[in-house]
Amino acid sequence: MSFNMLKGKKGIIFGALDENSIAWQTALVAKEQGAEFVLSNAPIALRMGKIQELGEQCDAKVIPADATSVEDLEKLFSEATEILGGKLDFVLHSIGMSPNVRKKKPYGELDYKLYMKTLDISALSFHKVMHVAEKQDVMNEWGSIVGLSYIAAQRVFPFYTDMADAKSLLESIARSYGYRFGKAKNVRVNTISQSPTVTKAGGGIKGFDVFFDYAEKMSPMGNAPADECAKYIVSLFSDFTRFVTMQNLYHDGGFSTTGISEDVVEMILDAKAREDEEKKDEE
Amino acid sequence: MSFNMLKGKKGIIFGALDENSIAWQTALVAKEQGAEFVLSNAPIALRMGKIQELGEQCDAKVIPADATSVEDLEKLFSEATEILGGKLDFVLHSIGMSPNVRKKKPYGELDYKLYMKTLDISALSFHKVMHVAEKQDVMNEWGSIVGLSYIAAQRVFPFYTDMADAKSLLESIARSYGYRFGKAKNVRVNTISQSPTVTKAGGGIKGFDVFFDYAEKMSPMGNAPADECAKYIVSLFSDFTRFVTMQNLYHDGGFSTTGISEDVVEMILDAKAREDEEKKDEE
Amino acid sequence: MSFNMLKGKKGIIFGALDENSIAWQTALVAKEQGAEFVLSNAPIALRMGKIQELGEQCDAKVIPADATSVEDLEKLFSEATEILGGKLDFVLHSIGMSPNVRKKKPYGELDYKLYMKTLDISALSFHKVMHVAEKQDVMNEWGSIVGLSYIAAQRVFPFYTDMADAKSLLESIARSYGYRFGKAKNVRVNTISQSPTVTKAGGGIKGFDVFFDYAEKMSPMGNAPADECAKYIVSLFSDFTRFVTMQNLYHDGGFSTTGISEDVVEMILDAKAREDEEKKDEE
Amino acid sequence: MSFNMLKGKKGIIFGALDENSIAWQTALVAKEQGAEFVLSNAPIALRMGKIQELGEQCDAKVIPADATSVEDLEKLFSEATEILGGKLDFVLHSIGMSPNVRKKKPYGELDYKLYMKTLDISALSFHKVMHVAEKQDVMNEWGSIVGLSYIAAQRVFPFYTDMADAKSLLESIARSYGYRFGKAKNVRVNTISQSPTVTKAGGGIKGFDVFFDYAEKMSPMGNAPADECAKYIVSLFSDFTRFVTMQNLYHDGGFSTTGISEDVVEMILDAKAREDEEKKDEE
Repeated sequence: MSFNMLKGKKGIIFGALDENSIAWQTALVAKEQGAEFVLSNAPIALRMGKIQELGEQCDAKVIPADATSVEDLEKLFSEATEILGGKLDFVLHSIGMSPNVRKKKPYGELDYKLYMKTLDISALSFHKVMHVAEKQDVMNEWGSIVGLSYIAAQRVFPFYTDMADAKSLLESIARSYGYRFGKAKNVRVNTISQSPTVTKAGGGIKGFDVFFDYAEKMSPMGNAPADECAKYIVSLFSDFTRFVTMQNLYHDGGFSTTGISEDVVEMILDAKAREDEEKKDEE
Repeated sequence: MSFNMLKGKKGIIFGALDENSIAWQTALVAKEQGAEFVLSNAPIALRMGKIQELGEQCDAKVIPADATSVEDLEKLFSEATEILGGKLDFVLHSIGMSPNVRKKKPYGELDYKLYMKTLDISALSFHKVMHVAEKQDVMNEWGSIVGLSYIAAQRVFPFYTDMADAKSLLESIARSYGYRFGKAKNVRVNTISQSPTVTKAGGGIKGFDVFFDYAEKMSPMGNAPADECAKYIVSLFSDFTRFVTMQNLYHDGGFSTTGISEDVVEMILDAKAREDEEKKDEE
Repeated sequence: MSFNMLKGKKGIIFGALDENSIAWQTALVAKEQGAEFVLSNAPIALRMGKIQELGEQCDAKVIPADATSVEDLEKLFSEATEILGGKLDFVLHSIGMSPNVRKKKPYGELDYKLYMKTLDISALSFHKVMHVAEKQDVMNEWGSIVGLSYIAAQRVFPFYTDMADAKSLLESIARSYGYRFGKAKNVRVNTISQSPTVTKAGGGIKGFDVFFDYAEKMSPMGNAPADECAKYIVSLFSDFTRFVTMQNLYHDGGFSTTGISEDVVEMILDAKAREDEEKKDEE
Repeated sequence: MSFNMLKGKKGIIFGALDENSIAWQTALVAKEQGAEFVLSNAPIALRMGKIQELGEQCDAKVIPADATSVEDLEKLFSEATEILGGKLDFVLHSIGMSPNVRKKKPYGELDYKLYMKTLDISALSFHKVMHVAEKQDVMNEWGSIVGLSYIAAQRVFPFYTDMADAKSLLESIARSYGYRFGKAKNVRVNTISQSPTVTKAGGGIKGFDVFFDYAEKMSPMGNAPADECAKYIVSLFSDFTRFVTMQNLYHDGGFSTTGISEDVVEMILDAKAREDEEKKDEE
């Protein structure tokens, strides 16, 4: 439903690849709520995905940019403000990739060059985005910047390897830059710690399915879907959340504060019952 | 600005006293966004405040209820759903009072009977509200319940004495009941940890002014005002935040994640400079 | 092994019931490390348990006291310092009981009078202990006070009902009183958040077994046993931890910071495999 | 006082430079408590400091190693276990340096190459240390590994710039590797979040003095000194803390859980009084 919550607001959305992307869904909701924006993704992602389709749907220009390149970002922000005819009110950073995860390297045997790449792509790029936005002075007062994180920044999920470290770094950058941007221009910076989501990025992680089901069982509301995350992001772009800053906000159906759920208890009891039966059968 | 974000939604707002109350401001914003609701407060608060005025402004019935009395709450919820013509989508619990704080009892010399009263009024009442709502089955699917907290639940503010303990308890109740309500009806339960706010409740606390100024200096955006908190509450009542539950959400201009601010550093440097000068003068 | 780490130190240990109690184990380790102390428990617990045995083993006087009674505590502290011939260096508060848990009341149907009892016994008693210790000025400089908590204070374990709230309150009291005692006498106050432990208290909780096994599987080191917790407590009583205060310290084999473990993944995969087989068999 | 708490234990201590270093103090306490160990630091630090003196005092071999070089670490661990005649029980990682901090770069204008260096030296080196220790299988069962952190990992201290991000990363690495090491060998991995400490490293930070004084005023016990931190580290190396793992442990006199202290309130009141006087004088 359109409430025009973002009417008159302009922004940049990084990271849409296909319908499953949170960034894709965010673009749809932002459009519906009256925003104008530019879409951006890495050149290679542009070739792989179908972001142009989304661009047409949203009346949004698509500008390729490697978010690890300050130069690319400078061009992007210049063009974006020109196209949109003014400064920006919101930025979504939905960028993350670990070559170590892709190569199925266990955490004890990381390739350190790839580790640095993981950090650069998934965390440092967030700093670069804000650095360029600050230098070009393109953010409006009371603007809002959001990055996407995951609870692996607080707790260990073994299969997530160095992305966990990258998310910790990302959240720290959000705080550090949030202080700076808050003081200078009342711009808020937050990360959303989202439920595991079936996206291209998530799909590449070993053991993802199991964990997805586990989180579904553990969360009182079940896993938060991508389109609901999009709505939450839009609420953080709206003027209803102006003093929320430097926070990591869980959007996870209650996973983060649930120690054990009745569904998980049942699963354990089931497993036990079966084991007991099998033992009997063997006798 | 009205976006009709709460169009068709019904609720109860506890704790409005005067224009400074967060609950008062929430009523105004909720009304503006298309909600219908009932206002409630303790009989004594009704006599002291001017909630009837607010009721007229918002087209809202005012129903007195002592939130520590299950019986009162049962009547309130029955009447409210009748008046509103349907189940509820949101509840705001903005209730807190410490007789020990009022009597300026230091934390080491609390009156234990009053301590229990503080907990009953400021925390347990939140459980009772949800207990009655559950028993009467008056919450709609995807409803939202919000309580108001303060960072004293995590860090010590000596003058806040037993209210700190009450807020810890309140946040725990939000998690515990949030699990239950999330599983049963996808109803979310959260607390907002708000900046120090100049209200009747806040005003009674010794040293409040000093702390208010300190928090103002420490927060990169300054303290979050009551009307902005009202907007944040409304965003949590809206359908844009459905999977956020069992969380304590800081609405504080960045206070909670700032270790030291440049403004505080300046204050300290100033203090030092003056001390040095005075020492010189003495010589 | 005795290192005489607590040589010359005097204290009070609350809550030993039988060999499974953490307090019991703490008494043994404290004794081994050269401490002198008094044991205390509620009169009813004294009748049920065999604390006198422990007293003999440790050369420790047993003094009954209801920790919810300031009067009882006043007598206890007076007698203890007389018997021990000096002020105290450490206090262990290992007291917790929920009549609601015992009566298997679900969290939505708590008896509120019993709820207040849970809080009084399991949390407020900690305040009372410190209040009396302060009033009688019986703590030595650099003393150490420890309470026992559980991660239900941060995350929901449905079967733990109102004890979760009590533990939140306990941790808040530790912080609030820790500030006071730290400033006045450099006495530190902390809580230890311990793995689920097979004790009389734990045993009464519905679903405890399942959760115990789950935590065992989830924690990289497995659940922390009671005797190891005792050693940890003794380290907090020693002079090696003087500046650790107002903290909640996890002693849990890594449970609190593990999101999912390989053992839990395996359990889930097993469950799935069996389900799939059963489906095949049915066909 | 020697309790021989670390009798028979062997280890490596990284990062001693001079008497002010926490690593230096840790070496002294570990020696006193009966441990044998090797000291290590970067070749350049060896030239600048007087670590050889410490080596003589502790009967400890000094082995230079650049902790960002896996090759150097491999040599170090091989030599260390040979010299010590067996596997290791403890490792202290007290390594941190930010070229951006040294060059007084504000957080918005970081040099990204130097940023990567900060992360490599201050955080990734911790991964490398554990990676080599695992690969060479040099840790004994129930060993203990400690890294040194700072609360800037959770809250913003503007002058600390990219070291804040590095500390967040360090703490994440401790959790991630702690899971792995806990499961494999019951080796625990923790970070200590220490009060600001007057060391060579700390001294280089702009505004450090002001912050040191502020933290002193804010912490109920005052700032924790380096020699007390050394004792705390030794307690974490001892067998009294075996099930504490994957934690970030505050050793800070209560700073982290204090919202405001009476001393800070006084400072603010003083500042106000003076301002008021000055205003009067001007009139």
